[in-house]
Formats: sequence, C-alpha cells, structure tokens
Amino acid sequence: MKAIGFKTSHEIEHKESLEEFEIQKPIAKGFDIIVKINAVSMNPVDTKVRALSAIDIALDAPKILGFDAVGIVESIGEEVTTVSVGNRVFYAGDITRNGSNSQFQTVDSRIVAGAPKSLRDEESAVLPLTSITAWEGLFDRLNVKKDEKKTILIIGGAGGVGSIATQIAKQTTNLTVISTASRLETIDWCKKMGADHVVNHKDLINSVKEAGFNTVDYIFVLNNLSSHWDAVAELIVPQGKICSIVDVKESIDINKIKAKSVTFVWEFMFTRAMFSTADIQKQHEILDKVANLVDRGKIKTTLSKTIEGLTVQSFKDAHTLSESGKTIGKIAIRF
Amino acid sequence: MKAIGFKTSHEIEHKESLEEFEIQKPIAKGFDIIVKINAVSMNPVDTKVRALSAIDIALDAPKILGFDAVGIVESIGEEVTTVSVGNRVFYAGDITRNGSNSQFQTVDSRIVAGAPKSLRDEESAVLPLTSITAWEGLFDRLNVKKDEKKTILIIGGAGGVGSIATQIAKQTTNLTVISTASRLETIDWCKKMGADHVVNHKDLINSVKEAGFNTVDYIFVLNNLSSHWDAVAELIVPQGKICSIVDVKESIDINKIKAKSVTFVWEFMFTRAMFSTADIQKQHEILDKVANLVDRGKIKTTLSKTIEGLTVQSFKDAHTLSESGKTIGKIAIRF
Repeated sequence: MKAIGFKTSHEIEHKESLEEFEIQKPIAKGFDIIVKINAVSMNPVDTKVRALSAIDIALDAPKILGFDAVGIVESIGEEVTTVSVGNRVFYAGDITRNGSNSQFQTVDSRIVAGAPKSLRDEESAVLPLTSITAWEGLFDRLNVKKDEKKTILIIGGAGGVGSIATQIAKQTTNLTVISTASRLETIDWCKKMGADHVVNHKDLINSVKEAGFNTVDYIFVLNNLSSHWDAVAELIVPQGKICSIVDVKESIDINKIKAKSVTFVWEFMFTRAMFSTADIQKQHEILDKVANLVDRGKIKTTLSKTIEGLTVQSFKDAHTLSESGKTIGKIAIRF
Repeated sequence: MKAIGFKTSHEIEHKESLEEFEIQKPIAKGFDIIVKINAVSMNPVDTKVRALSAIDIALDAPKILGFDAVGIVESIGEEVTTVSVGNRVFYAGDITRNGSNSQFQTVDSRIVAGAPKSLRDEESAVLPLTSITAWEGLFDRLNVKKDEKKTILIIGGAGGVGSIATQIAKQTTNLTVISTASRLETIDWCKKMGADHVVNHKDLINSVKEAGFNTVDYIFVLNNLSSHWDAVAELIVPQGKICSIVDVKESIDINKIKAKSVTFVWEFMFTRAMFSTADIQKQHEILDKVANLVDRGKIKTTLSKTIEGLTVQSFKDAHTLSESGKTIGKIAIRF
C-alpha cells in the first residue's frame, strides 16, 4: 500500500524530505484495528519529527507521519470493543507507530471513537490530536472543575490546540478565557472561537492587566514557553496551575514559581499510548465527547485549509505552510 | 520585650550572627492574636534567612526568626473566631512578619489551632511547620486521595518534614511509603516513623528497583532536588506527580518529564499567609486535624532534642546543629 514518509531528516525543500513508499498492509490483532484513511491533518509534531528524528542517519524503515485521521474501520482484532467494522472513526494515534499518511493504518481501538456525523471527513480530521491535547490539558492536567468560576490564559489562542481549547473551555466549563493573539486576523479568529478577552503576547503582563486581570488561575502554554516564562511566573495566581505542551528551549528558572506554590504540568498527547497506561481508553472517551459536542453544534471544526490527495506534493505543501508559523486553525489533507 | 534575631547575615560563629534585642510588645488587631511563647523549634528556613537575607547590608529593624511555636493566647483582635484568650495554641506563622524567638508574638489567628493536649510544649512546638508542609504537599499539591492504593517516594525521610509526612501518609491514607536514608540511625528512624521501605538516596534508581518498584506514583522531594533530578525523572510513573519543597540549585531539565506528562508542583508553607489567599484558614484546619491525630495516638512527636532558654546561646547551638545536616527529626527550644 502507498504511504508518505521519510528515511532521513531534511529541510522541506529537499527532494527526500518526504517521499512515497510502498509498505506492507498491516493485519489487526488484539486491541488493534485497520482503518482505510479518508483524510488526515497537519500538526506541528509532523514537522518536528521530520526535521529532527533522522539527522545524519538513514532509518531502516520509512517513518510514516500523520497523527490525525478519519477513515472507515476495515478489520478489527479479537479484543476490540469500542468500534466495529464499517464504522467511520477519527483518532490521533500513537507516535511510536506508523502514522496516518497512508492508504491504511493500524491503530489501537482504545484511542479511537466514532467521527462526528455532522462534519465532512476533512472537517473531522483536524480535530483529534488538538481536541485530546486540549481536553487532557484542561481536565486531566490542570484539573479544571466544570462549575468553578475561574480564569484561564491561553498563550497561542489562534493555533490548532488554542482554537479547540477555547471552544471546549467556553462550551463545557465556567472559565473566563483570555487568549493571546497579535495580528488582526488571529484576534478575530480567537473571538470566533469564543475567547472572552484577546490580549497581545508581545506585551503579555501589561495587556492581561489592561484586560482587567492582575493574576489568572490557570495558564495553558501552547507557544514559546521560554520566552513567556517570566510573564507566566508573574501572572499566575498563588497556588495556580500552569500547563505547557511546548518544550523549554532555553532553560527556565523553575524557582520563580516556588513562593506561590504553583503547579507546572506537562501535557503530551502521546503519553497514554506510548506507555500503554492503565487509563489509555480515556482517549476513546474524550473523542466520543468531542464528537457529541460537535454533533450538538457546540464545537465547530477548526479547519482553515484543505489540500487534496495522498501525494508527496500535498504533504510538502502542508509542511511548508505549517512551518511558516502563520497558519490559523488547522490544515487537512483529503485523500 | 526580649527577642533573638539579627540585623546582618553572618556565619553562626560570628558574634553578631544572632543577638538579643529589646523590641516593642505588639497589640492584637483584626484577625491577629498575641501569644506568650513557651517553646519554639528549629527549621532549615531559620538558617537560610539568617545566612542570606542581610548580606553586606544592615536591616533597620532586627529580623526575629522562629517559625514554630507553642504558647498561650494573651489577647485577640476583633475579627478572631478560631481561638480564645487563655488557649494553648501552636502554629508556624508567617515569614513576612517577626518570628517566634521572642517573649510574645503576633500571629494571624487563621493559621493557628489548639495545641495537642497530650504533648508537652517542646513536643508540640516541633510539629506545626513540618506538619503543614507535609499535609499541604500530600493533599493540596500532590492531591493524594485517601483511599487510592498508590506509592510515594519521600526523598529525605528522616528530616523534619519527612518524619511527619511519613506518619501522616501511613495514618491517613493507603499509600505505600518508600523513604530514603543512608545511615543506620536514619534508616532506623524512618522505620519508626512508619515507612514501608527505606532505600538509599546515594543509589536511588537501583535501590528503589531492588525494593520492588519500577516506578512510583508520587515523589516528595525534601532534599537536594538538583542532584536527585535525573533519578526522579526516571522513577516517576507516566502521569505521576512530583512535589518539591527545596529550591533548584543547579538548573534542572524540566523537559525530561514531558513525555510522561508529569506534574511538578512546589510546596512552600508560607504561600497562604504571604499572599493572604482566600483559603488561608486551611492552615488552622490542618493544625486542628494534626492535633487530633496526635491526641488519638496516631501521630508521634518528631522531637529529637530539646535546648533550654530564650537566649542567644540556645539559638546559636540550635543553628549549629541544624547546619550540620546530620540532625534526625527536630530540635525544640523551651523558654
């Protein structure tokens, strides 16, 4: 079967940055299912893995990227209970296995759910990775309670995770959402997602204070943790919580949040699948809730652009757009 | 009234490292009470503040140390509801105000509770700061649930906080407690406190594994965070939680716990008082529960040595012992 991937890390302009491979079609065992893919989406993790995981080496087998998919269940393993053959499903997948940029994909059924019925394939394909990240960040890491009247600052409000985190927070909790954006079109996008306030991340402390907040209860860092760290440490309330999905580039002074007894917690969407945690099926449950919120009209797709075809050129275009750092919402690739 | 403190930072051997001062007796207003002090205890924060807070400067007013006390309530402010005149109380206090090494002290009644009835003054005086730290660490920061059957690694099991944290964990939760110690007498002390396993912090990863644990659910770091960081990052379970009360000395690589979506949270006992948080009275409630556990015979005092007298020499002796790094349990000073 056809798949798009790489064996060596290159700049996207390089001929071998992404290539077409013919790989063996998998067979479903245990909790696994085989899905015939209809559409996938682009995430920052794709460009990171492509650019960093095979520098100065050549992988034995091609690494197939793609960590979001919508497709039809073709076959199931003997322990599968969450889905059936013929179901139209959506999922993010597992970074330690082959991704979704392929005709067929093996995925653990415990991290898969039925796709929203009210959306087209490309509209659903942009949701799983960002929705799971946002949901786990809000509820499993920051431990937000649905009824508490608190404030959350989302740094990177117009990106993929920011867009869906804002919607989930506004539609399922009583949080006041303060999102960051600096361009007219991203400010407008954040407001469409439901942000109560949009502040400028280039002057974060002052713009949060001008919006009327001396401190915030939660901070969700989706962008450039190191450069925002001093502001984050100042704005977080005593005993507040900070969740980050982005690595520290230059080291941060973690002592800065000690006097306030603050929590710093990582959200990494692949933890449950990578370590086969006892609660791995939580990702099935999260996607099921998200599909339900979509079908009830509470959450909108964050799709902003669709690219056509399971081809090397489609994915080179998608990677180029993603690496520009200027994308709003999400890019889908429809096969 | 007489008080022991300092105006400039010196090594303990220096004549002016600690001095006797005559300061004005305070008056109680608002939530404050005035307590006549019977006994206090020694904590690492005393030596840190003494040695670091007035280097190359002289303070205008003497800084009075002492962040643990037992005494009798002499007068109360108009908003006090938690205690009455004549009550025998215990508390840790507020690092931004004068401490307890003094004949009388002002303290916010919302962080004070009745002292255990079954203990002598010096036996109770060693409990407040460490008990609040342990309780907040376990329940407010790590968010341990009383019924869950999980494991906690306490790094620094024989120290003041480690001793009481072990007892609180064993007496009020279902946690399996793995404590660290490396000398025969500290190993013995940890077992007396109730630790299920005592492991050697000098070879932490291997000794935890030899005790039968590949990972632990919680880690409470009470000692040398920087040097234990690599082991802590390896031993913590995916989605586990790490709480530290000790500053980072050399910077730590916080990215190391990202793939496991781990929580890192600070416990600083003075946060609630320092920032006058809405939940400041939680410290009254914690001390009340601790006194109750003591009087029901569930928790033992962690007193290991008593020094007599509100004198400069008493406190110089106590600081010298504390700075040796070899103390087990806690030192009290009885006036």
